Amino acid sequence: MQIPKPVKNLIESFEKLPGIGPKTAQRLTFYLLHVPQGMLEEFAKALMNLKKSTVICSICANVSETDPCHICSSQNRDHGLICVVEQPLDILAFERGGRYQGVYHVLHGAISPLSNIGPDEIKIAELLRRIKQSPEKIKEVILATNSNMEGEATAMYIAKEIKELMKDPKIRGLRVSRLAHGLPIGGDVEYADEMTLQRALEGRREYGA
Amino acid sequence: MQIPKPVKNLIESFEKLPGIGPKTAQRLTFYLLHVPQGMLEEFAKALMNLKKSTVICSICANVSETDPCHICSSQNRDHGLICVVEQPLDILAFERGGRYQGVYHVLHGAISPLSNIGPDEIKIAELLRRIKQSPEKIKEVILATNSNMEGEATAMYIAKEIKELMKDPKIRGLRVSRLAHGLPIGGDVEYADEMTLQRALEGRREYGA
Repeated sequence: MQIPKPVKNLIESFEKLPGIGPKTAQRLTFYLLHVPQGMLEEFAKALMNLKKSTVICSICANVSETDPCHICSSQNRDHGLICVVEQPLDILAFERGGRYQGVYHVLHGAISPLSNIGPDEIKIAELLRRIKQSPEKIKEVILATNSNMEGEATAMYIAKEIKELMKDPKIRGLRVSRLAHGLPIGGDVEYADEMTLQRALEGRREYGA
Repeated sequence: MQIPKPVKNLIESFEKLPGIGPKTAQRLTFYLLHVPQGMLEEFAKALMNLKKSTVICSICANVSETDPCHICSSQNRDHGLICVVEQPLDILAFERGGRYQGVYHVLHGAISPLSNIGPDEIKIAELLRRIKQSPEKIKEVILATNSNMEGEATAMYIAKEIKELMKDPKIRGLRVSRLAHGLPIGGDVEYADEMTLQRALEGRREYGA
């Protein structure tokens, strides 16, 4: 059976999304056939406006409605502490906790030679420029990339580049740190993988009762 | 952190889809931020046109670009054999096999008292009208609703209604059948649930080597 063209078009659009296969795309499309036209139009409008009504913050590269974004323009934030993340979604994860008071820098990806993503494809140069422009203001850079291969490679690359910058005496005092690795809260030792357990051992801390 | 309004709008639109939770909706939305505007507009257009450019076939209630649909208007189909399905997607499943040569009737749902869907909410009356209108043409109705509680209830209800119709001597010859139940092809007896195994036993057939 030929699927009607308008139905096929939407199935194909859904299929382009990550994690959505042909079956799910079909299911979503046929679900939407039963939905009022108004809801479809709202959905369409949201898609059209997604990029039109947002900007990339010129300081931290986060997605925002204003430039600079509300975090970079906030007076309540410690602008000397920069947390470097791969994606805007990672910022959401930190902000959910509500404890981090510094600012961010979004790389929009991680170094991944297999996908042809080198250091120039992500916003590393912007980070280094940011450090160079106000060396006295920035005290610490927290590398909060993912702890997979790409994230580790990216963290290593950035750390190396910052070390290079530190030859400038004005930047010498900058601290570079990485998120701690170890057991997740609520995690069982029994089920932890060997790498995590190894890192948890290495990172063990003094403990007083 | 407040998520920018345009981003939030799209997340909310995705969340309304079945099987898409808040996390997936966020992931899809942030993925689309990295996509060219042209692709977003294509997606939006596909959504807008989904219902505008399709019709429900006046004979079988399938989703189609033309009325009657290409199956109902085909000369190569056996119009005396009607396969009754819950959703347009079910037709796709049958057509994928390519062996079924009859026509279809789409109910657009199944009887489900828990969701307030009674016999009048789905296209049962249309099916009965179709049978009454050409009693000499239609030879068999195959009830191919799902084999869950709602699908079984719907099949039972339709079979009862058709029996009522058969009081008319012109319709008396109509055959009503239900899809066979049993082990799926490639299925292990070991992992089959008791209901399936019971049905497979009941439906066992003569077997010659």
